[in-house]
Amino acid sequence: MRTAAAIVALALFASPLGAQSVDRAEVGRILDEGLNRSEVMRTVQHLTDHIGPRLTNSPGMRAAEDWTLSKFRDWGLKNAHKEGFDFGRGWWIERASARMVSPRPIALTAIPIAWTPATAGKISAPVIVAPMSEERHFARYRGQLAGKIVLVTLPNDGSEPGDPAFRRYSGDELAKLDVYDQPKYDPEASDRRMKRLDYSSKLDAFLKAEGAVAYATMSPRDGKLVHGAGYLFGAGETQQVPGVEIAAEDYRRLARLAKQGPAPVVELENVVHFVDTDTKAYNIIADIPGSDPSGAYVMAGAHMDSWVAGDGAVDNGAGVAMVMEAARILQAMGVKPKRTIRFALWAGEEQGLLGSMAYVEQHIAARQRKPGSADTGLARFYGWANRWPITRQPGYGQLAAYFNLDNGSGKVRGIYAEGNGAVVPIFREWFAPFGSMGANTVAIRKTGGTDHVFFSAVGIPAFQFIQDPLDYGSRLHHTSIDTFDHIKADDMRQGAVILASFLLNAANADKALPRMPFPTEPNVTDPFAYPNPDDLD
Amino acid sequence: MRTAAAIVALALFASPLGAQSVDRAEVGRILDEGLNRSEVMRTVQHLTDHIGPRLTNSPGMRAAEDWTLSKFRDWGLKNAHKEGFDFGRGWWIERASARMVSPRPIALTAIPIAWTPATAGKISAPVIVAPMSEERHFARYRGQLAGKIVLVTLPNDGSEPGDPAFRRYSGDELAKLDVYDQPKYDPEASDRRMKRLDYSSKLDAFLKAEGAVAYATMSPRDGKLVHGAGYLFGAGETQQVPGVEIAAEDYRRLARLAKQGPAPVVELENVVHFVDTDTKAYNIIADIPGSDPSGAYVMAGAHMDSWVAGDGAVDNGAGVAMVMEAARILQAMGVKPKRTIRFALWAGEEQGLLGSMAYVEQHIAARQRKPGSADTGLARFYGWANRWPITRQPGYGQLAAYFNLDNGSGKVRGIYAEGNGAVVPIFREWFAPFGSMGANTVAIRKTGGTDHVFFSAVGIPAFQFIQDPLDYGSRLHHTSIDTFDHIKADDMRQGAVILASFLLNAANADKALPRMPFPTEPNVTDPFAYPNPDDLD
Repeated sequence: MRTAAAIVALALFASPLGAQSVDRAEVGRILDEGLNRSEVMRTVQHLTDHIGPRLTNSPGMRAAEDWTLSKFRDWGLKNAHKEGFDFGRGWWIERASARMVSPRPIALTAIPIAWTPATAGKISAPVIVAPMSEERHFARYRGQLAGKIVLVTLPNDGSEPGDPAFRRYSGDELAKLDVYDQPKYDPEASDRRMKRLDYSSKLDAFLKAEGAVAYATMSPRDGKLVHGAGYLFGAGETQQVPGVEIAAEDYRRLARLAKQGPAPVVELENVVHFVDTDTKAYNIIADIPGSDPSGAYVMAGAHMDSWVAGDGAVDNGAGVAMVMEAARILQAMGVKPKRTIRFALWAGEEQGLLGSMAYVEQHIAARQRKPGSADTGLARFYGWANRWPITRQPGYGQLAAYFNLDNGSGKVRGIYAEGNGAVVPIFREWFAPFGSMGANTVAIRKTGGTDHVFFSAVGIPAFQFIQDPLDYGSRLHHTSIDTFDHIKADDMRQGAVILASFLLNAANADKALPRMPFPTEPNVTDPFAYPNPDDLD
Repeated sequence: MRTAAAIVALALFASPLGAQSVDRAEVGRILDEGLNRSEVMRTVQHLTDHIGPRLTNSPGMRAAEDWTLSKFRDWGLKNAHKEGFDFGRGWWIERASARMVSPRPIALTAIPIAWTPATAGKISAPVIVAPMSEERHFARYRGQLAGKIVLVTLPNDGSEPGDPAFRRYSGDELAKLDVYDQPKYDPEASDRRMKRLDYSSKLDAFLKAEGAVAYATMSPRDGKLVHGAGYLFGAGETQQVPGVEIAAEDYRRLARLAKQGPAPVVELENVVHFVDTDTKAYNIIADIPGSDPSGAYVMAGAHMDSWVAGDGAVDNGAGVAMVMEAARILQAMGVKPKRTIRFALWAGEEQGLLGSMAYVEQHIAARQRKPGSADTGLARFYGWANRWPITRQPGYGQLAAYFNLDNGSGKVRGIYAEGNGAVVPIFREWFAPFGSMGANTVAIRKTGGTDHVFFSAVGIPAFQFIQDPLDYGSRLHHTSIDTFDHIKADDMRQGAVILASFLLNAANADKALPRMPFPTEPNVTDPFAYPNPDDLD
């Protein structure tokens, strides 16, 4: 009966000991500062229009590190500094072009894949369609790829988007988020995932050995949207063969023409650059100091790094700007909180939450590494949460709450309580002043995929807000149109004031937010399951 | 009481004298040929992937003229020939690029505007945002445009697409199309429209005089879709200043940066070419000869010309392929119709239905030109339908019916009866075998915007089919993703067999389809209306 599920279930029905009444006068001051003198859209516009894409360790990210640090300092925050962690190479696109030159001239919409090398000037080569997604597919194309641009994605059919691209949550949809998810645990899953991680390296080695001049993937989205995501960023681990992601419509046309022959000839030029001068990535930290002598603090964070195709607007300039705006609002109000309020802008999120993981490892809790296990690239991400035991760092007890923003620019509609039933009534009370702004859902379920998860995984009360989806998932997430003009100003101001209010409540509460039991290795595994053969392939 | 509306109302309640029972065995043979041995997707794939965009008088359109003529001949159709009409210059894009080079390098998604001249090599210039849409706006920017790339569109906000991009008609929606529209007639409307037509020329002259190096418009659609439509195609009327349409996200970013200054610098290269060797455009005509000694014929048509950004797939390679497939099916069946069945592939539709207009003028009916009125460019389109009287050509009585396809690749759901109530019960009968394929709506209303309208305007029973909208209007119409992979094969085969069946019914009917009264100048004008001051501006 020591399963995590059972323990969580008890916590769910505990009384809300930590509930605090909200200081409505403070909320009024937050609303005044955050709605009448908002800077949030100026902040996100600078990050996006002026700085642009912020791939970790790229020049754009470096510029963003400097600019946000100086902003925090200008606003009067204390302890503003960078915290470095081992990452890998930077990379950026100076310019790139892709054209079909035969059988007829046509501009292709395409983008270099992150961390692939430059082409040797302007190259021109026939394409070959060689769909490969596993190592066993290589044999089919051996001896056929020399001098070719290799199209490695299997073409699909055109999409039929039957749902609106832009939407807000209905009350029904919000209610459906409030479902308790029992923990699932499969201790071997991450090992299986890690086995697949080196496929990209193997494909690169195969293409290099075969003499391919470049490879191309098909955009996973229709409509001329491209992304350019690539995952081999470690120092010494980047690819040898230039790669390009081609818009789905253009890729499918190339594939059809190649099938009918003669193979189309494509002209590619990727003028891209690696940056090796500093392989450390940096999180940006700044504080509004608290009076509590224990060093207790609460924290808000958002990742500042982005992908390469757009300007990193809804993912996640929006979150960064709301976190910074909450800092500005509270600082402008001159708050003197009991607990320190810390603001964090993470790096390396898109490569596996690496910035927040580094913070957790250094300040909160360490997890034992399995001997011999890989600790580079995405393996770091997949491996980390499954290492046991967890060892508290000296600062473990000081972090009282962490709030994350990384769901685009949609207004805050509520918060995921991460299975921590004891915080539900407290958060309900904290949302009370914002019900008329659309925020009042406290959903018990966990959510993943962003920087609260490693805090939560070591037992810190760490939460991600629920935001209206807008067109985040449908067309903006990691795409070439993740730009400032798809950010909603009213929503951004609303999110910033709610975050500011939550931080102030958490910082000044008599009692810190209730914690879940300290995590031990869970044992809820399905004893009847056979491994998926695809996972073993 | 001689108004057109009253006459139409009488016709609505006339008995369906022309009703014919459908030969179900013929329908079975059409389905067999059109579904088991379909060529329709091969046809449209050649037009789109291989030939690509087909701007009237461009090399692509010339290739399409030759290829479709040879196809008709290969299939055994008779009288396959081209019919020329005065059009203007051809134009095509060899290659083009647009980049912001300062304050940071970023690839812009952009396309040269049709019929604008090439840039003088690769040009690099600061942008200026100078929103102009009427001549009176020029004064505001006089003296400021020299050496600049002029952004002439007023930037808007990012879109919030709340409807599904892809959809089929529900039964309710189809029912709503069956509404009788009383005629509206405003004899001065076309004059007012024509007055505005020369705005493009005036803008061009202003930009040239001011020394602008290029101008840019903003794409009317979000999401990196571009179109490149331009309307100054007449010989001697094309523009002097290079023009480019920039994707909305990229345009808005330039505009925001320019507002904050310093002005972004953009590098443009439009390698485009005019074709002056033959300023005639050509309609493609082919027949399955009938036995009727009167020379009576029925006809199906679709415009083959396209815009420049995509491959002219749903607009209107799809319609062309269905018309050609109907020809192939009927020819393969060896039909010997009573009336000749004629197939027409029009040019110049995108410039104002100019190909079908030329056919009507030459073969069906002429309309008197108003002395001194313009007869070039879009003025030809706006002016034509308002010229009176109409004079029948010798062939007027021979054309018994015209069917048009130009609503994308969505399946046929019905037909617009163009206010001709007498054909409604006949078409209902003709659709009877196809109800289980989704086609059974006969909507009394008129529809416009494509090549049946000038036939209809002179009293020919001329009709456009109702097709499922799919993503035609939302994202494909005239855009860079109007490509083969957004065409639906099942729908295309369905459309082709229905068209073939309608043509055979119309060709073999004992009585020709009932006609509306011969058009005379209508006088249904609102006696209480004041002219819209915007129209007089």
